[in-house]
Amino acid sequence: MENWYFENQLTGFGYRMKIKENLEKFRSEYQDIEMMETYDYGKLLTLDGLVMVTERDEFFYHDAISHPSLFVHPNPEKVLIIGGGDCGTLREVLKHKNVKEAHLCELDGGVVYVCKRHYSFTQPSLDDKRSKLFIQDGFKFLEDNKNEYDVILVDSTDPIGEAAKLFGENFFDLCFNALKSDGILAGQAGCYLYDTQVPVDVYKILKGKFPIARLYTALTPTYPSGFWSFYYASKKYCMVKDFDKNRVIKSGLDFDYYNEDMHLSFTALPNFFKKALEGKSS
Amino acid sequence: MENWYFENQLTGFGYRMKIKENLEKFRSEYQDIEMMETYDYGKLLTLDGLVMVTERDEFFYHDAISHPSLFVHPNPEKVLIIGGGDCGTLREVLKHKNVKEAHLCELDGGVVYVCKRHYSFTQPSLDDKRSKLFIQDGFKFLEDNKNEYDVILVDSTDPIGEAAKLFGENFFDLCFNALKSDGILAGQAGCYLYDTQVPVDVYKILKGKFPIARLYTALTPTYPSGFWSFYYASKKYCMVKDFDKNRVIKSGLDFDYYNEDMHLSFTALPNFFKKALEGKSS
Repeated sequence: MENWYFENQLTGFGYRMKIKENLEKFRSEYQDIEMMETYDYGKLLTLDGLVMVTERDEFFYHDAISHPSLFVHPNPEKVLIIGGGDCGTLREVLKHKNVKEAHLCELDGGVVYVCKRHYSFTQPSLDDKRSKLFIQDGFKFLEDNKNEYDVILVDSTDPIGEAAKLFGENFFDLCFNALKSDGILAGQAGCYLYDTQVPVDVYKILKGKFPIARLYTALTPTYPSGFWSFYYASKKYCMVKDFDKNRVIKSGLDFDYYNEDMHLSFTALPNFFKKALEGKSS
Repeated sequence: MENWYFENQLTGFGYRMKIKENLEKFRSEYQDIEMMETYDYGKLLTLDGLVMVTERDEFFYHDAISHPSLFVHPNPEKVLIIGGGDCGTLREVLKHKNVKEAHLCELDGGVVYVCKRHYSFTQPSLDDKRSKLFIQDGFKFLEDNKNEYDVILVDSTDPIGEAAKLFGENFFDLCFNALKSDGILAGQAGCYLYDTQVPVDVYKILKGKFPIARLYTALTPTYPSGFWSFYYASKKYCMVKDFDKNRVIKSGLDFDYYNEDMHLSFTALPNFFKKALEGKSS
């Protein structure tokens, strides 16, 4: 019998991935967690039946959520990741030599547990002396931290269930307060082709709170549509004007996806998305 | 009974689309042609079982293959499209007021036939006084045309079967000769995530024949991976240096995908792809 994983992304549209082996399946306090070995994408993590991470393409998303902010901030010493229990974002953050402390606040210990067992990058990222793991509600964690971080990265699931509050006004107020006076906030804002309203709403909130706010986009092969939106908000630094291509080149860091040209290309938005942000119909 | 269309893109990975109605299915002289009404993507055209066009997302591909060249060439009066029997590329070419003649050379009359019956944009594009349709082998068509065109757009299927020769040295020699002394050639170069070698090989050939050659990329939600590569080659004009953003703005043309920022973002290549082009492993 063939074993296929299906992800339904629209009424009658989605991916299917052929599964070599079902590795783990359990319910944590918050969600259904499953790890499968696929034929084409390596090990696949799903949460509540949705693709979160595959070994083959995780570098796209993790590069896109982390490096733009870390290369714009002139000295990101203290970084907070909310969500991201697989530690792919943490791994990318730790590549930056100016990072002295990287805190990861993940709600669901089950995600960290299963990723440690199956992804080669989870445990080593946590073992780095600069890393500190908090299994805690990001909302509450932020309430206890004011004026602490240079960069906050929100690597959450989509705004359904527990993660819905990570897309609301109160959450972004807490992020604002937890950032230092020149801090940068970035996070995933969903599939802008199928759920355009999600990034549009997030952008409206951020624009009202931060002096600088924008959306950017990147490729994500195994997420719905194949590309994704991210938000960027800052108290001081513009993602374009305060970005110096030479800093990427001089860093000596070599990524699989991100580079100095991709940084700027992330900020170009397709016309239909630009119009949605401006409140015009396409 | 549910009716699903499956596209297998890798060993065990692909899309599935739920079908409302099977509209047409026949074999032409060259290939299996099928038109289906889907739940989410409107009418879907497949050739030999592979997604070619959907009503919902065709604008991505058609914008990307046509506008970069047409906005770089200072006066694209005479344009040739090879392939593209659905006439989506033709529709985009005709939006440019400086275009006086748009020739479409499609090998398979069956594609034009079925698209005329089901896509709203096929017949009107052919009815435009500037359009001329040739049901003919593109290879032979080019042999009879020297120094004729300002822009040639190659909107072919992937390099399998009949279309394989549209990715080879001889074909690009013919294109070079059919272009005027400042002509531009562009075309689809395949899925650069799954079939990286296809665009890499095309780029090598073009670099040896044209003074200016590059690859660029764009989003294509229903093609494998969700994004695609294109080649650009020119006897005179650089896609970046000879591009003037103001020309797009002043044109008054309003696209769903393409705009002056997207033009430049198309030219940024992900690091793994850059390395493949430079012959380095990622």
